[in-house]
Amino acid sequence: MTKLGDGVLAQPYGVPSMYEKNVVRRDVPFLTGTQESSVSFTPLQNLDGIITPNGLCFIRDHGGTPQVDPLTHRLMIEGLVETPLLFTVDELKRFPTISRTHFLECPANGGMEWHGAQLQSLQFTHGMVHCCEWTGVKLSVLMKEAGVKPDAAWMLAEGADAAAMTRSIPVEKALDDVLVAWSQNGERLRPENGYPIRLIVPGWQGNQQIKWLRRLKFGKEPWMTREETSKYTDLLADGKARQFAWILETKSVITNPCPENPVAGKGFLEVRGLAWSGRGKIKSVDVSFDGGDSWKPADLQEPVYTKCLTRFRAPYRWNGDPVMMQSRAVDETGYVQPTIGQLRAVRGSNPIYNNNSIQTWRLNADGSVDNVQIA
Amino acid sequence: MTKLGDGVLAQPYGVPSMYEKNVVRRDVPFLTGTQESSVSFTPLQNLDGIITPNGLCFIRDHGGTPQVDPLTHRLMIEGLVETPLLFTVDELKRFPTISRTHFLECPANGGMEWHGAQLQSLQFTHGMVHCCEWTGVKLSVLMKEAGVKPDAAWMLAEGADAAAMTRSIPVEKALDDVLVAWSQNGERLRPENGYPIRLIVPGWQGNQQIKWLRRLKFGKEPWMTREETSKYTDLLADGKARQFAWILETKSVITNPCPENPVAGKGFLEVRGLAWSGRGKIKSVDVSFDGGDSWKPADLQEPVYTKCLTRFRAPYRWNGDPVMMQSRAVDETGYVQPTIGQLRAVRGSNPIYNNNSIQTWRLNADGSVDNVQIA
Repeated sequence: MTKLGDGVLAQPYGVPSMYEKNVVRRDVPFLTGTQESSVSFTPLQNLDGIITPNGLCFIRDHGGTPQVDPLTHRLMIEGLVETPLLFTVDELKRFPTISRTHFLECPANGGMEWHGAQLQSLQFTHGMVHCCEWTGVKLSVLMKEAGVKPDAAWMLAEGADAAAMTRSIPVEKALDDVLVAWSQNGERLRPENGYPIRLIVPGWQGNQQIKWLRRLKFGKEPWMTREETSKYTDLLADGKARQFAWILETKSVITNPCPENPVAGKGFLEVRGLAWSGRGKIKSVDVSFDGGDSWKPADLQEPVYTKCLTRFRAPYRWNGDPVMMQSRAVDETGYVQPTIGQLRAVRGSNPIYNNNSIQTWRLNADGSVDNVQIA
Repeated sequence: MTKLGDGVLAQPYGVPSMYEKNVVRRDVPFLTGTQESSVSFTPLQNLDGIITPNGLCFIRDHGGTPQVDPLTHRLMIEGLVETPLLFTVDELKRFPTISRTHFLECPANGGMEWHGAQLQSLQFTHGMVHCCEWTGVKLSVLMKEAGVKPDAAWMLAEGADAAAMTRSIPVEKALDDVLVAWSQNGERLRPENGYPIRLIVPGWQGNQQIKWLRRLKFGKEPWMTREETSKYTDLLADGKARQFAWILETKSVITNPCPENPVAGKGFLEVRGLAWSGRGKIKSVDVSFDGGDSWKPADLQEPVYTKCLTRFRAPYRWNGDPVMMQSRAVDETGYVQPTIGQLRAVRGSNPIYNNNSIQTWRLNADGSVDNVQIA
């Protein structure tokens, strides 16, 4: 480090201003049964644009973050393939590469709201999502290299963490747009985000995008791992569980104002938020200032990417009266983000996962903002 | 911090893997006359995609990095305006915002190569460029608010650093696409990149994109500050200096292979690089493996943004013989990146700034890579 003038130190790897020390990931310790697993939320209330800086990407793991040495790490491809293969990380990096900007969300994002938790925090209601520019090799290239057999319908992906995190993914998706990535936002993956390599499964649940990826096995049937039987299923009202709900449906949330971003006074303000869909591009976002009775279109920041956070903005002149603010996204398939009431009518109130409902913020006369639920 | 499993610590603000500790900005102390000013280079050799993570963005300052308190900082707009204005940072954030991904380059990038320095390092030949998603308010909105008078032709922008860095910018550019930005890659600006607010002047010299922005003054003539008379001018062969060369012309460089990225052995490899233009979008990039005698087109990573780094890639099968590798970019105006010989024919060999010439890397039989110059 070199002292520069009478200001701050110039660091080989820079850090945020001391005045931004509250812009951090935050944990909810009681959300996980043991200290070995962890959830840590992205501070969406402090972010602009669509890129999430790597240091603030939410973390979810089932067995801690392993410290993986990239020189000894290997990726094995096996099962229903012509030629089982074992790759070093450097060997993977010689393949043709591609960069894609995609959101990544845990399906438990907003899970506590199913039961009306009404957490007074955007960070805790929606902070299990981030968005990065990923670079790696298309999985289809590696599958061709190994010669995946025609009767292979499923792929098991396994991580090198203490939980040996495993998920079954259909070969059709694997061949479509899945990446084996080593880079996020230009630099190598962060340890907690899967260093040195991870799967990127665009638009699908975060837990399928296996971090610290060490094995891909091809077979005829799903493996029915713990993560697709006891976890990541939706318990319906009749006691049956909905399984393999992979795709993250269209969702949006207003990030300004929000509980952490009160309004300093009446007059002009810009309502800002994020929208995303696991099925493609966001087509439109509407905002409401009367709890969903009337809507008007927000502006979308161009360009809009597929399966990517999309920033929306709407001008608003606040007269100081209490207001019920909402945003509602529509994706390119025509899917309209539902209310929590619409979701409960179909799935009941038991689920933890896949809550993509419309969020209501109540802007109070004093400028404070509350999380409220409108059925 | 929470201990997670037996792996690494999960931090509120994350950091790279211990195995990436050599991926850092690097200084060249002798480049600046005093320790109060500084140059620190982006490690382009370690980066993928187009986003530069904030901690690795190159630094150039003339008086150190000030530690600016965002609560006491003000932006003044004065001079030929109907209503002089003084803004707090929070007041600026209530305006309508916009996000744009743009490169930012110091015109001295590659300056040592004018004189044939032949630095054996991509980081030191091309590392004074970075690329971020910037968010802020369009300067034209603030100019309308102040009522800039019709006879104002120039704007003086001044920073709050010890150098009171100042540059004159034509009003025409200020009204076009300039931002007053507070966010880079989602989070607030880093201190060394202008926290809490800076100008973004897309495609123009980095030194014009005033950091720690505190004052904008409108007038009829340029102010002829130190930075546009003694510095940032090109001394030509006849002793005259070329002034106000603002726009960064089309440029490209191969980032893999490069001196820091030797080739492990013959066979397939992907040649990767970056191209950019201060005039708009990159239209095409060609690569040569015979020192410019023949060319073939590289693939551009879509989408291609205007005034933004563009990632190009070309497949290559190396037979192990020495090869002279080059890349040559063309932008949407049809401008073709020149050779160093073509630049010298017009500007001589005195300049320090605005070297956008074709870079030659010699891939040697042992896989090492040298910086060589082909006139």
